Amino acid sequence: MEALGDEVVVGVDLGGTKIFAGLVDAAGRVAGETYVAHGAGSDGAAGETAYERLVGVIRELAAAAGAQGRRVRGAGVGAPGVTRADGTVISAPALGWRELPLAARLQVDLGLPVRVDNDVNAIGLGEHRFGAGQGTRSLFVMAVGTGIGGAVIVDGRLHRGRHDAAGEVGALLPGLEFLSWQNRDWGALESVASGSGIAARARKLADAHGIPVPREGFRAEDVFLAAADGAPWARAVFDETIEYLALAVANVQALLDPDRIVLAGGVGRAADRVIPAIERRLAGVLPFPPDLVASALGYRAGVLGAAALVS
Amino acid sequence: MEALGDEVVVGVDLGGTKIFAGLVDAAGRVAGETYVAHGAGSDGAAGETAYERLVGVIRELAAAAGAQGRRVRGAGVGAPGVTRADGTVISAPALGWRELPLAARLQVDLGLPVRVDNDVNAIGLGEHRFGAGQGTRSLFVMAVGTGIGGAVIVDGRLHRGRHDAAGEVGALLPGLEFLSWQNRDWGALESVASGSGIAARARKLADAHGIPVPREGFRAEDVFLAAADGAPWARAVFDETIEYLALAVANVQALLDPDRIVLAGGVGRAADRVIPAIERRLAGVLPFPPDLVASALGYRAGVLGAAALVS
Repeated sequence: MEALGDEVVVGVDLGGTKIFAGLVDAAGRVAGETYVAHGAGSDGAAGETAYERLVGVIRELAAAAGAQGRRVRGAGVGAPGVTRADGTVISAPALGWRELPLAARLQVDLGLPVRVDNDVNAIGLGEHRFGAGQGTRSLFVMAVGTGIGGAVIVDGRLHRGRHDAAGEVGALLPGLEFLSWQNRDWGALESVASGSGIAARARKLADAHGIPVPREGFRAEDVFLAAADGAPWARAVFDETIEYLALAVANVQALLDPDRIVLAGGVGRAADRVIPAIERRLAGVLPFPPDLVASALGYRAGVLGAAALVS
Repeated sequence: MEALGDEVVVGVDLGGTKIFAGLVDAAGRVAGETYVAHGAGSDGAAGETAYERLVGVIRELAAAAGAQGRRVRGAGVGAPGVTRADGTVISAPALGWRELPLAARLQVDLGLPVRVDNDVNAIGLGEHRFGAGQGTRSLFVMAVGTGIGGAVIVDGRLHRGRHDAAGEVGALLPGLEFLSWQNRDWGALESVASGSGIAARARKLADAHGIPVPREGFRAEDVFLAAADGAPWARAVFDETIEYLALAVANVQALLDPDRIVLAGGVGRAADRVIPAIERRLAGVLPFPPDLVASALGYRAGVLGAAALVS
């Protein structure tokens, strides 16, 4: 373990198929990182396995901290689903969880203070406290990965919204033609600009031009690589992705005028290509240009964000 | 004067051509309403006249309150322009004002505490305190009149944003085709869905079909009346207006998930036709339907909002 402060928090990035966790101190230093797969499916029994793994991982990290004489202030969990302020997971389809009072249950099983929130909300708090949003009063974090989510921070606090759904930038309607959007599991912007949406558009375009692309495992990353290599079909998909993301950034800017907008998530990791392209697209379009930056937390965003839930 | 509480505030709705003001008590009761024109143009001298009228109106109302033994806690002014939290009007083109420290200047001239904010921010606070947003924690007020503006309230407080431009729903880009928008005085959504935008679209459509409409003084109201009378061209313009406003409401809902969205302003006064049409258009489109209601303050929104600036 690297040098940590005397007080630590267990931060847990709970995904649909894996658990990534670590001990995090007040300065955002991380040690004891643990990465385990869990057997969650969409049935209750598999969800139970994920829960047991989760308890095991937190116990193990807390014990390691205790053995070094460090006080464990609590555990924070970023969960892949809609979550209430009290730490109840309303719905996490990847884990087969519905209305699970996860924070309360973990608190009983672990004997530790536990905070649970939606993974993107956690990442938002993590960027604000430890990452690219440090020093801002208001912040919008746009997480573009397999799906698209977001978090709104106002006056240094998470704005959750009436249905705990504030920041759902993936549900933005990027044009009148999306007013017929009726898919509750898949936001309108998400359907075109998320990793999955990008891959789907690319496959469609490639098929139309008789360009062979893999049936399985074809990802946004592959499209971005092909675009960088100059493939015209991939370039067209990349450019259209930039248009959709630029529209989303513009609309966040118009409604919230945040101090900063942080681009996070898998597509966000291509920020060196994506952010300059968005900025070029938006030059002169808005009264005030957004301060758009890349996540500073990278693959640890989820762990640091979960730790930031425990204040 | 109707019965007021013992403590009052002078609330001033300062427009581009008129001043509307009144005494407002803690319960939002209004008395002593005054409506005067001022001679503002876009030159500094005319702006000075507007300032002098403004001082005169506030003095007169404060004196009337004093004569009745009521304590005047201060004055609030909603101004037609971008305004900083300190009450400086950054830019109010209708009055020819730039970087005018209006609150500080009025305070000196009047010997009263004075708060100044953008008119739509004031209306937002007014709806929250006295109107359709009472009891909410988070609120979005969308003011659709000659232009389109908005105000964001989070945890009961106005969220101003980095450039004091939060809530600028008129600047939303309602589709990729608006990514080439380069007009800084006229937002993209505003250009199609404001009163002026509606009239412009209607005139264009009427011209294309050889339908005579007045060259001057043709307004959104006339389009709505013609649509209610069944005129197909007006109906088409009305339906397209609903599409744009529904898109804006959907995007506010997605990003902010506020407790409520209040539709205010001139077009908002047609809320009995507009709101049900927006709700029909959005049925099933979003994970959570917005709670969309009409302004409860009507023509007094500006006065009550300005009064709400003085807490």
